Amino acid sequence: MDNTLAPDAGISPEAGRPRGGSETSQALEPTSPVALFSRDEPLAMDSGLTLAPFQVAYQTAGTLNADRSNAVLICHALTGDQHFAHRHPVTGKGGWWETLVGPGKPIDTDRYFVVCSNVIGSCMGSTGPASVNPVTGCAYGLDFPVVTIRDMVRAQAMLLDRLGIPDLFLCIGGSMGGMQVLQWASLFPERVFAAMPIATGARHSAQNIAFHEVGRQAIMADPAWAGGRYLEAGTRPAKGLGVARMGAHITYLSEPALHRKFGRRFQDRSAPTFSFDADFQIESYLRHQGLTFVERFDANAYLYLTRAMDYFDLAEDHGGVLANAFRGSKSTRFCVMSFTSDWLFPSADSRAIVHALNAVAAPVAFVEIESDKGHDAFLLDEPAMFSAARGFIEAAARARGL
Amino acid sequence: MDNTLAPDAGISPEAGRPRGGSETSQALEPTSPVALFSRDEPLAMDSGLTLAPFQVAYQTAGTLNADRSNAVLICHALTGDQHFAHRHPVTGKGGWWETLVGPGKPIDTDRYFVVCSNVIGSCMGSTGPASVNPVTGCAYGLDFPVVTIRDMVRAQAMLLDRLGIPDLFLCIGGSMGGMQVLQWASLFPERVFAAMPIATGARHSAQNIAFHEVGRQAIMADPAWAGGRYLEAGTRPAKGLGVARMGAHITYLSEPALHRKFGRRFQDRSAPTFSFDADFQIESYLRHQGLTFVERFDANAYLYLTRAMDYFDLAEDHGGVLANAFRGSKSTRFCVMSFTSDWLFPSADSRAIVHALNAVAAPVAFVEIESDKGHDAFLLDEPAMFSAARGFIEAAARARGL
Repeated sequence: MDNTLAPDAGISPEAGRPRGGSETSQALEPTSPVALFSRDEPLAMDSGLTLAPFQVAYQTAGTLNADRSNAVLICHALTGDQHFAHRHPVTGKGGWWETLVGPGKPIDTDRYFVVCSNVIGSCMGSTGPASVNPVTGCAYGLDFPVVTIRDMVRAQAMLLDRLGIPDLFLCIGGSMGGMQVLQWASLFPERVFAAMPIATGARHSAQNIAFHEVGRQAIMADPAWAGGRYLEAGTRPAKGLGVARMGAHITYLSEPALHRKFGRRFQDRSAPTFSFDADFQIESYLRHQGLTFVERFDANAYLYLTRAMDYFDLAEDHGGVLANAFRGSKSTRFCVMSFTSDWLFPSADSRAIVHALNAVAAPVAFVEIESDKGHDAFLLDEPAMFSAARGFIEAAARARGL
Repeated sequence: MDNTLAPDAGISPEAGRPRGGSETSQALEPTSPVALFSRDEPLAMDSGLTLAPFQVAYQTAGTLNADRSNAVLICHALTGDQHFAHRHPVTGKGGWWETLVGPGKPIDTDRYFVVCSNVIGSCMGSTGPASVNPVTGCAYGLDFPVVTIRDMVRAQAMLLDRLGIPDLFLCIGGSMGGMQVLQWASLFPERVFAAMPIATGARHSAQNIAFHEVGRQAIMADPAWAGGRYLEAGTRPAKGLGVARMGAHITYLSEPALHRKFGRRFQDRSAPTFSFDADFQIESYLRHQGLTFVERFDANAYLYLTRAMDYFDLAEDHGGVLANAFRGSKSTRFCVMSFTSDWLFPSADSRAIVHALNAVAAPVAFVEIESDKGHDAFLLDEPAMFSAARGFIEAAARARGL
């Protein structure tokens, strides 16, 4: 079985580009395959609402084996997408996890069939607030139902069903992707052989919610947001979304990393300009982060995905006891990974997951990686992460008979 | 000498309310005394520009003794003002440091003459970007010269001259106020008997600059900011300033404090609303912080004061060696104070100050207070801070013969 599926299987080779995406001038190339779910295949959501029809855009690498036992699901983070190992259609950059995934890499595409889907609520081809609401013929905007991490996982499970993948050899992801991994292990334990949640937590902390709320308020404060109806209004809340990204970006880096990369160095000069220009390199860097982000991301999608993370509290869904979330997970083997300088999802959050897994006697390894790169370390060149991932995945492959 | 000075001494009993301040409906009561500096008494600024005429609004408590040896200068933080022990004219709340200052308090107004002036560049009566530019007859806006911490201190020194205070028994302040204390000790060591910089640093870190830059961008992204000319435009960048305040406020608190105060508790309900309302208590709290702040603070002043903090680097001003900044400070006694959960100005920043003071053999005590309240601890009920301050101040008073 290769990774191109016939349209008659309900898979369209065309990416469903969200409306308004044409504001970025680049064509969507290569297109992502899209799994279409009809009105008869609704997504039941935690809010009590259902979404139908809907679609899930995804990318794959490698080949599913005859036993269908070598599938890996990569779950992307808040502002990530399905382009884990392929040139990004908007930015033109390489895949966001090419460091970890590829031939001979820890997630070896010569051995595994790797799938990554754009989460429901996002804006890179899966149905989200920028998609057309079939009832109105206009973009959903804030009429799109609020999405949870569990909703994302349910949609991924429907995609795997469509792709004929009975269960996952490995489910892996960082940050919001790690939340999905935990949710997979809890919701579909029988479908997850090995799980690797990285730089994540079983719930979003008050501080994390606070940072997200500031970002949302920055977007909604932008008059161009137009109450969420900016696509009809022909405007773009680029300034608000840019500010949201700038603020969030600080939380992805550690103070030592910022100090090492930028310190108090001035931009192109040796002295202050005594103005409000981007005087320091760190200012210029952040402004650039904001500007490039708005070229590739939908503001309403940012609202929805931050909300999904805020709502995530796996213990709360299980009577307030995190271990209860993993009662069915005893046959899943876990590798929980954190980074010492990650202050967004500190190691304590990972330890709480490990303790809960210990409480239900699930096999778990905890890897805390000494790094000064902060939360984003999971996306960067971290040899200790690669070697730990390689070791865990190879051991799991042996146990799986791969 | 009491704390009301005759107008012929160049002191006006009327506060110079910045233009546009009338947008908040409350009257400025009680008024702050104001020291007026004429065209012949310019403030020489680090930018190379001069400011003239200008004025400094201030408040006092207690009585200057016959020797003029019992003066205390309190330096306020970024969004603070001169109302350290008096009802705030806009908010109606009590003084922001009533916990520390008053009869029988560590800064005992029965014994000391306490002065606190609104910093240059701010908006509570001292000249700043909302003041009238005598050249144009309109508010300065971004034509106001960029202010540094040293400029603030120079203006304070001119105020003390006007008040007939030759030197300070104590110079004390937290955060941006602490930066001013360090600058006082460095610039006018002979005028500072005792110095107490709290929760501060000798330079602003890359992360701190980054957070400030996000706040500035939030303000400047607001169309109502109107390129800084919102007073003439009759608009108010309230949304942008509110977002800036929300983001900054997170940095003033620790994660444990946020968890203790708010955790993941919902607002008025037990379940999520699946909407973008303020669902969590932390969201509601932050929105309230933003809304109340814009009632009392000028957006351009926020730009200027954050910039002043960003530019602060006492070592850089002295050949890159912090100890050089304190070469003249050997006769000043220091008490450097930090809080364990302050991640904006962590204890390491205070230790760097202590090491520099050690290097020049200046008398220094370092007090690191175990607290989970974060950066704002210096404004809160922290008994350990009060007792340490009391001990340091009483010992200094004995040494001073007070």
